[in-house]
Formats: sequence, C-alpha cells, structure tokens
Amino acid sequence: MTYTHDALLDVAQQLADAARAAILPHFRNIGLTAENKLSGGYDPVTIADRAAEEAMRAVLADLRPDDAILGEEFGAVAGSSGLTWVLDPIDGTRGFVSGTPTWGVLIAVGGKDGPEIGIIDQPYIGERFIGTPEAAWVHGPQGRAPLKTRPPRPLSQATVFTTFPEVGTPADAAAFVDVAGRAQLTRYGMDCYAYALVAAGQVDLVIEAGLNAYDIQAPIAVIQAAGGIVTDWQGGPVHNGGRALAAANAGIHAEALAILAKHI
Amino acid sequence: MTYTHDALLDVAQQLADAARAAILPHFRNIGLTAENKLSGGYDPVTIADRAAEEAMRAVLADLRPDDAILGEEFGAVAGSSGLTWVLDPIDGTRGFVSGTPTWGVLIAVGGKDGPEIGIIDQPYIGERFIGTPEAAWVHGPQGRAPLKTRPPRPLSQATVFTTFPEVGTPADAAAFVDVAGRAQLTRYGMDCYAYALVAAGQVDLVIEAGLNAYDIQAPIAVIQAAGGIVTDWQGGPVHNGGRALAAANAGIHAEALAILAKHI
Repeated sequence: MTYTHDALLDVAQQLADAARAAILPHFRNIGLTAENKLSGGYDPVTIADRAAEEAMRAVLADLRPDDAILGEEFGAVAGSSGLTWVLDPIDGTRGFVSGTPTWGVLIAVGGKDGPEIGIIDQPYIGERFIGTPEAAWVHGPQGRAPLKTRPPRPLSQATVFTTFPEVGTPADAAAFVDVAGRAQLTRYGMDCYAYALVAAGQVDLVIEAGLNAYDIQAPIAVIQAAGGIVTDWQGGPVHNGGRALAAANAGIHAEALAILAKHI
Repeated sequence: MTYTHDALLDVAQQLADAARAAILPHFRNIGLTAENKLSGGYDPVTIADRAAEEAMRAVLADLRPDDAILGEEFGAVAGSSGLTWVLDPIDGTRGFVSGTPTWGVLIAVGGKDGPEIGIIDQPYIGERFIGTPEAAWVHGPQGRAPLKTRPPRPLSQATVFTTFPEVGTPADAAAFVDVAGRAQLTRYGMDCYAYALVAAGQVDLVIEAGLNAYDIQAPIAVIQAAGGIVTDWQGGPVHNGGRALAAANAGIHAEALAILAKHI
C-alpha cells in the first residue's frame, strides 16, 4: 500500500477525532474510576484510555489494514506495509484523573527509523499540534498558527520542563537537576504538553527518563517539524523510548547534552 | 452604592472579559519580553499583566467608582462602599511566559471578612470558574457545568497539588511533604488552576505558602461556593494571604490540618 504524507495526515487526524470523541465524555466525570495497572505504584488506567485506543484501532483497521500498530493499552500488531502507527491514547493519565488540561492523545506514524508524522492532541482545550515533513502547525481555540521552535539562547536564560521532580532513577534526577539548576526557569507537571510547548517556541528544553516509544514518537515528529531536536541523553535516536532530551535548537541541545553526558 | 450579587457578578464578568481581551494578544507571542520585577529572583512581569489590570480598573472606574481596589500590579485604591475588588491579572506568570494554559485571571469582590464572589478565568482555553453565595459553575469549551467538590475520602486516596516542589520556606516544604507523602497522588505546576480543580471535584487538596491576598481571594470564593473549605495552616482565615490549605470537604481538611499543625 503506497501513501502520501497528506493521506497519512488525514488518517492521523481521523484517529485524533475518534480519540477525542471516546475520551471527552469521561473527562472530569465524577464517577470515573481509575484502576490500578501496576500493583506497586499508582498508574491509573481509565475506561477512557481503552475506549480511545480501541476507537483509533477501529479507524486503522478500516483505512490502513496493512500497517503495524504499537499502542500503550493493547500492545503491538504486525503489518506488511513498512509503516507503524504508534499510539498513546492518554499520555499523562495522572493529569487526566486530576482534571488538568495538559494530558494528550499521541499519534505518530513512520518506519523503523522513526516517526514521519505526529500529532499531540488536547481534546478538552480543542488544541492539536501537528508535525509533518513539510510543515508544523497548531489548531486551537484561538485559530491556526505555525509552530516554530525558539532561536538559540544560553541555558542560563532558558526554560526547562520535566513532568515529575523525581524524573527517573535517582541518577536520572541528579542529571536533570544539573541542567535545570543552570536554567532560568524550571517547570513541572505538563506531561506531553511540554513537548508541544517546545514546538510552539515557548520552552527551550524538556528532559525526561523512562519513556516508552509511544510517549515520545509524536513529540519527536512535531518538534522536528517545528525546527527542534529530540534525542536520547547521548545524542542518539530515542524513538524507541528511554531517556529523552527535546531541544528548541542545536545550540541549547548541545549545551544540555554536555551536562547530561557527565551523568551517564 | 447598594448592590446585589447578580449585579456584582455582572461587573466581575465584564472585568474578566476585559482582561481576556488585553492578555490574549500577548500569550505565546514570540516577541513578548518579560521584565524582571525582583532583582534577586525571576518574577516576570509582562505587558499583558499590566494591560489586563489597567483594563479591569477602567471598567471599575466606570461601573463601581466607590469600591476599593487591591491589584497585584498597581496596588491599593481606597473606596467608600465597603466593598473591595481584589485583582490578579495573571496568576502564574511563570506559566504564562512558558506558554502553559494553567495561569489565570483572578477576580474577587467582598468586604473585610473576605470575598463574596470570585472568578478564576483561563482566557486561552476560554474557561471561567465562578463562585457566588448562591451557586458555583464553570463555563468552558465543553459548555456549562455545576462545580461541586469531592466527597470525603482518606488522605491515602487523595490527590494533592502545589505549584512548586519548593512550596515556601524549607519548613513550609517539610510540612507539605509530610501531607503529600501520605497522599495517593501529588501533582505540580498548575498555578491557580489547581484551585479550580478543587472546585470542580477533581482534586482533594491544594497546599501553598507565601500567598498574597490577590492570589487566594478568588479561589476562596469559588471553592467555598462549590462546597469546599479554604483556610490558613492553622484553620483560620486566609483571605489576607499567607499559607493556604484548600480542601474539598471538612474531612480531608481536618486530616491535612492535623499534619500541617505539627510544623507550625
């Protein structure tokens, strides 16, 4: 099955629409119950997570039956086209169950070298960040705007995000603090929305650890399309997950990488 | 000048509308420059902050000239009516300059015993949380919904928010950690939006320190109208600022207060 980027983007938008419709009835629903996926920790999996991934898989079964799928809730399905859809129905489930508007639906499609097209969708706000090899833009409550990452500035003037102050392992956290302590501003708790803010030119760096492929592939596509760089903490590819460094430009990426490298 | 709650709410909504119009052109504007208000730290004051407070003061000069005003950017103006408008044009300026959608415009009006009516407005999302002595509701992208705080649950099943992991002083932070460490979920970085989530029944507790009157009066009015409780860390009134404990109900308030009290 051949494809064009426009055709794949059209499918990706249909996936995002299907996920929105499946999720929104459950958001801030007082009766929503979160099950506990990990016996040791608190990893809420909601009805909304599963309904959204099922809705997206139904669209793919209809429109792209030969593509592979990797999804957070229902695992991997092999394909024959060379393309894989990488889906996280709700990235930031802890934020979702707390009612925050910074979780998102993550959709990416590409080959084995990483994503070509990505969407970060925030259904409650009605905001969709899109990256393709040709362009990057956001469509939200204030209309449509191009996405362009920030020009270079020193780390001492930069804004750094991570979701949890704890980051990953204690060693990961020490590496994060080493970078964040040299930045002008450190902020927490945005889940995938922080990556969207790198693409939107608002934030210089996002540093996270312990990621899965479905957490990072859509952000990679959106940020790269907007002019940024996403790698692991050694400067290598991160589309299979791990420790991620998302940067607005090559200058701030190099400055952060030099610090993180001392901790590896 | 006499008043009814309906008439005051109408003025409050006009203030919120004026602030939205003043702020939105500056949000995520790449050219936005943040000045440094405190020489020792990073407290960005933007053109948007000042423009929004000026726009709100202009509405009050026209509609409520005899009321007092306390605003973050331009200080206090005395009045003769017994009512004071307490205004924070952008609560969460650090979030604002980072592009997050969780800052807000805070508007409260009341007498010396605290606010009677409050609004937490998020202009980018187009979401307005309102509390009056008669009702509490939100109007947002998904329509209008009543606000009702969560019923009681043990702290071990509760969600706790604060804006910064550092909270206030090291002693304040230790008190926060003592509460948060017993909760099911701790989240950061929502600014005033966390208070809105208490009112919306999504979150059990918000704990903060070092607040000014304009940071907390609107949250007090909205949360109380939705069935919650907002006090200082000793259970006393907090409408003049300081250390705040916002709780969904009397049970979780008492449980958190008993822990915080050990740290005072």
